[in-house]
Amino acid sequence: MQLGVIGLGRMGRIVVDRTLDAGHDVVAFDLDEHAVADAADAGAEPAESVVDLAERLGDDKRIWLMVPAGDAVDAALDDLEPHLDGDDVVVDGGNSYFEDSVRRAESTDAAYLDCGTSGGPAGAAVGFSLMVGGPKWAYDELVPVFDAVATGPDGHDRMGPAGSGHYVKMVHNGVEYALMQTYGEGFELLANGRYDLDLESVARTWNNGAVIRSWLLELCEEAFREEGNDLGTVADRVEGGSTGTWTVQEALEQEVAVPLIYEALGERFDSRTEDPGKFSRRLANRLRYGFGRHDVPRTDDA
Amino acid sequence: MQLGVIGLGRMGRIVVDRTLDAGHDVVAFDLDEHAVADAADAGAEPAESVVDLAERLGDDKRIWLMVPAGDAVDAALDDLEPHLDGDDVVVDGGNSYFEDSVRRAESTDAAYLDCGTSGGPAGAAVGFSLMVGGPKWAYDELVPVFDAVATGPDGHDRMGPAGSGHYVKMVHNGVEYALMQTYGEGFELLANGRYDLDLESVARTWNNGAVIRSWLLELCEEAFREEGNDLGTVADRVEGGSTGTWTVQEALEQEVAVPLIYEALGERFDSRTEDPGKFSRRLANRLRYGFGRHDVPRTDDA
Amino acid sequence: MQLGVIGLGRMGRIVVDRTLDAGHDVVAFDLDEHAVADAADAGAEPAESVVDLAERLGDDKRIWLMVPAGDAVDAALDDLEPHLDGDDVVVDGGNSYFEDSVRRAESTDAAYLDCGTSGGPAGAAVGFSLMVGGPKWAYDELVPVFDAVATGPDGHDRMGPAGSGHYVKMVHNGVEYALMQTYGEGFELLANGRYDLDLESVARTWNNGAVIRSWLLELCEEAFREEGNDLGTVADRVEGGSTGTWTVQEALEQEVAVPLIYEALGERFDSRTEDPGKFSRRLANRLRYGFGRHDVPRTDDA
Amino acid sequence: MQLGVIGLGRMGRIVVDRTLDAGHDVVAFDLDEHAVADAADAGAEPAESVVDLAERLGDDKRIWLMVPAGDAVDAALDDLEPHLDGDDVVVDGGNSYFEDSVRRAESTDAAYLDCGTSGGPAGAAVGFSLMVGGPKWAYDELVPVFDAVATGPDGHDRMGPAGSGHYVKMVHNGVEYALMQTYGEGFELLANGRYDLDLESVARTWNNGAVIRSWLLELCEEAFREEGNDLGTVADRVEGGSTGTWTVQEALEQEVAVPLIYEALGERFDSRTEDPGKFSRRLANRLRYGFGRHDVPRTDDA
Repeated sequence: MQLGVIGLGRMGRIVVDRTLDAGHDVVAFDLDEHAVADAADAGAEPAESVVDLAERLGDDKRIWLMVPAGDAVDAALDDLEPHLDGDDVVVDGGNSYFEDSVRRAESTDAAYLDCGTSGGPAGAAVGFSLMVGGPKWAYDELVPVFDAVATGPDGHDRMGPAGSGHYVKMVHNGVEYALMQTYGEGFELLANGRYDLDLESVARTWNNGAVIRSWLLELCEEAFREEGNDLGTVADRVEGGSTGTWTVQEALEQEVAVPLIYEALGERFDSRTEDPGKFSRRLANRLRYGFGRHDVPRTDDA
Repeated sequence: MQLGVIGLGRMGRIVVDRTLDAGHDVVAFDLDEHAVADAADAGAEPAESVVDLAERLGDDKRIWLMVPAGDAVDAALDDLEPHLDGDDVVVDGGNSYFEDSVRRAESTDAAYLDCGTSGGPAGAAVGFSLMVGGPKWAYDELVPVFDAVATGPDGHDRMGPAGSGHYVKMVHNGVEYALMQTYGEGFELLANGRYDLDLESVARTWNNGAVIRSWLLELCEEAFREEGNDLGTVADRVEGGSTGTWTVQEALEQEVAVPLIYEALGERFDSRTEDPGKFSRRLANRLRYGFGRHDVPRTDDA
Repeated sequence: MQLGVIGLGRMGRIVVDRTLDAGHDVVAFDLDEHAVADAADAGAEPAESVVDLAERLGDDKRIWLMVPAGDAVDAALDDLEPHLDGDDVVVDGGNSYFEDSVRRAESTDAAYLDCGTSGGPAGAAVGFSLMVGGPKWAYDELVPVFDAVATGPDGHDRMGPAGSGHYVKMVHNGVEYALMQTYGEGFELLANGRYDLDLESVARTWNNGAVIRSWLLELCEEAFREEGNDLGTVADRVEGGSTGTWTVQEALEQEVAVPLIYEALGERFDSRTEDPGKFSRRLANRLRYGFGRHDVPRTDDA
Repeated sequence: MQLGVIGLGRMGRIVVDRTLDAGHDVVAFDLDEHAVADAADAGAEPAESVVDLAERLGDDKRIWLMVPAGDAVDAALDDLEPHLDGDDVVVDGGNSYFEDSVRRAESTDAAYLDCGTSGGPAGAAVGFSLMVGGPKWAYDELVPVFDAVATGPDGHDRMGPAGSGHYVKMVHNGVEYALMQTYGEGFELLANGRYDLDLESVARTWNNGAVIRSWLLELCEEAFREEGNDLGTVADRVEGGSTGTWTVQEALEQEVAVPLIYEALGERFDSRTEDPGKFSRRLANRLRYGFGRHDVPRTDDA
């Protein structure tokens, strides 16, 4: 089959390559001409614009968007819309907010699939996990492409109607935050504990047969191998947070308590606190003087 | 009645003054001669040693220890022991671990009262809250002194047998940690929120009639008044933690979850993290590169 | 001065009574005729409708809304709007969401004051804490009423522009949740701990001089006195949660971590879990079988 | 080589079988004669007692204890001790507290290896993860057995001196608690969320390529397949907790905050709360009446 791919960044390029490798045709476009040329070198048919890509696809278009979540998705859809009808299928493989996906699904003439994509750049080799929402017929149509892009038939499935793919991906990411922070707590305790341990060896031993083995733990092992036992210059600052925030917001809406996910998100916020530090702790510090006349550590202490 | 007071620091001195003010006699000792002389100026009978104090008290001794928790209590008790019998009463008004109090109660010939004391130096004016454990007859004997030292008859009570006073005080302190951190969270949100607020005014308004009014909130109000709306040079570092740790340990023993108290204790630990910061966050930072090739903030970033 | 009061429930009635007691005139309306008649008996001038109330007030109207947050506020404002101009002042003393208050302030011709009100029915005797947002001139105009309704001049203040009053009240309530849960943790540990304690005595002793003394702790003391040491038939179910949810949502928006407030909110959600209980724990239960062949407790275990 | 195995329960039997499969000799003992007979059928040499086992091993004994943590370990060691000298090696493969292991290592004449063993009964097929503490020469001596019992050379390593193996295993289990609860939170949100999802499909899709893939997630997938999408009769009760408690205790000792691990442990405690439920929530419920006259849900509500 033939797939149009819009967005040729690291992730979009993997979609192109894996789809080509599976014997399908790809028409590729990106705002960056070099990215288009590179994709063409790899065997894709280059397009000069979103409209050009749409025109090259003919009827029954199958288009995969792999652009940054937010305005870029709407912009691509706006360009596509005049060329779409009910026999076409558009996949949004980015990290969109699920309510945006529901809105987009309702406003386009095409069948719209929201596709949560997990696995990161490492997916180039092993394939992605694809959580797909939208009409069943459209999902079925795209199965050959999903088989190619995912780890295989078990690496993708239709979660439910519009929005459900990005909804499941949102929760996936909330879980991801808490898993990362959990391993972090374990290694922090070991790093500060009673024994002088080789943390790469700990991670490797765990990864081979222990209950807590996982891909994230393999990445911990890699981190200690590459950065050293004390993580070298890696800073105490964790960026990101939007999908975790969405997860907590949705959990509030559903009145489901997710304290571990919340805690992990809070660590990110805390890690980005600017000088002179957390106001809550500064107040607690001062209150200890208030009731107990304990010394107050000051920012200008010698 | 006559009371021997051992330990004339800030808290011990308040015990002396309030007991004298209530018309009782006090024999006072401290390792610091100046503290003894000051107490004598205030009307107490000075003693030259623990033994001297014991001898000056005669039969049916009533002795209040107000020395630092730990070895100092055992040292004072060792000196007293040869002079004590079953008609004597010893009060430990310090912040001792309750199991130490149980042990001491069992090993001394005197009746032993473990007395959790809350209120801090401010208690000089209003009196303390006294949570007392030990034999009922001994508690009853000391009521005149407790009436003087506490805010009044409602400011002291016998909690139960040996150790129960310090046990209740331990839990009091665990609660104190979480209350402080809770107010801290509220003010941190306000300080970072959508409005440019006068936090002293907020605290004052709350303290006059709001559901969350409290003494700690009055101390918040005082802190903003004295340090300024941004808390000036007050550092993001909270010292202390032993009673909170004991509370969490006991809760583990009893299989009772105390997540707010734990969280507040954890903030203290976190506030004392040394460079380059929390290991758990540093690992999470690096993992984001591992799976997503996100940039890694580094300690040597320009 | 003359004040129109719309909404004569428990809280609105306190506004009427305290305003009358301070020597001001009150025009009162409620959808419930009996509530209007009762207020008239107390000295207020009865109105037959919102419009009638507006007409009775003449120029420079001062109107206090004390109706349930949400549609009732908009409905009252819709009725009032044709009768309002820029010299009039409307106070919303309810628990409105601050963004609604900003919207209402922008859409009415009157000066709009959003007034967070804390203290509950107990405020009948001691007065409320009033956190007020909106134009300074309007706040100044209402000071005589605020003096009457609040605990006094220190019990009310202007926090800032439109919305700030309800914003500060929202955070107040988030703090309230965590304070309640904190005391709950302390008493839960004591109730399950090593000593057989009289919790009313513990609360009373703490309330007299201890660092953690507060109005909420006085309410704990009252609860143990009235319900008994084991809280009798009081159920493990905590209703409510909207203001706490708003607080956490705003903290997410501001990227401020509020783990204690979140935890307290989560306890409410958890307390309302329906049979067969929390899904997360049920899964954890089953996972222990998965890796360790541990017995799985079942809902149909004999 | 020849290995004596004491304790032929599910885990001990796996040690026997995997060691035999690797071509080594095994002398096996258990208090249960049938277990010994079964092991003999599998190719092990049966022993009639701990002493008999020791005598059958001759010089340079290598003995693996796989008995329940606690008294059973000390009892076995007491029986062995007269037969041990400094050329012998004893491995404790159970879930012992690390400080017990340090104590035992110091008190036995043999070289003592504390060996944290993870993987559960599933390790029969794939092998275990073995975290070993103790003298390097003893670890080196046992490598052929560790190779056989673990997943392979990468599935075991020497963590450090005495106690370090069980120390790392303790932290492993703390992490395990939090990982389980994290997946639980994610699936709880999905089960209560906006879409009607097939949770087995979600787990399978995630397990194939997603960042959060892991063995525990495979066990989630299995749980949904075997119990159904709503987990059927699986109860909201999580047993166990000792290793998690040890982890938190050690983290308190090291002043390292581990809020996610603590939270997961607390969920276990909460899940075992007896009627009429959590005292903290019951008090919060009653306090809402205290300040706001909100209805109090009661255990005897119709």
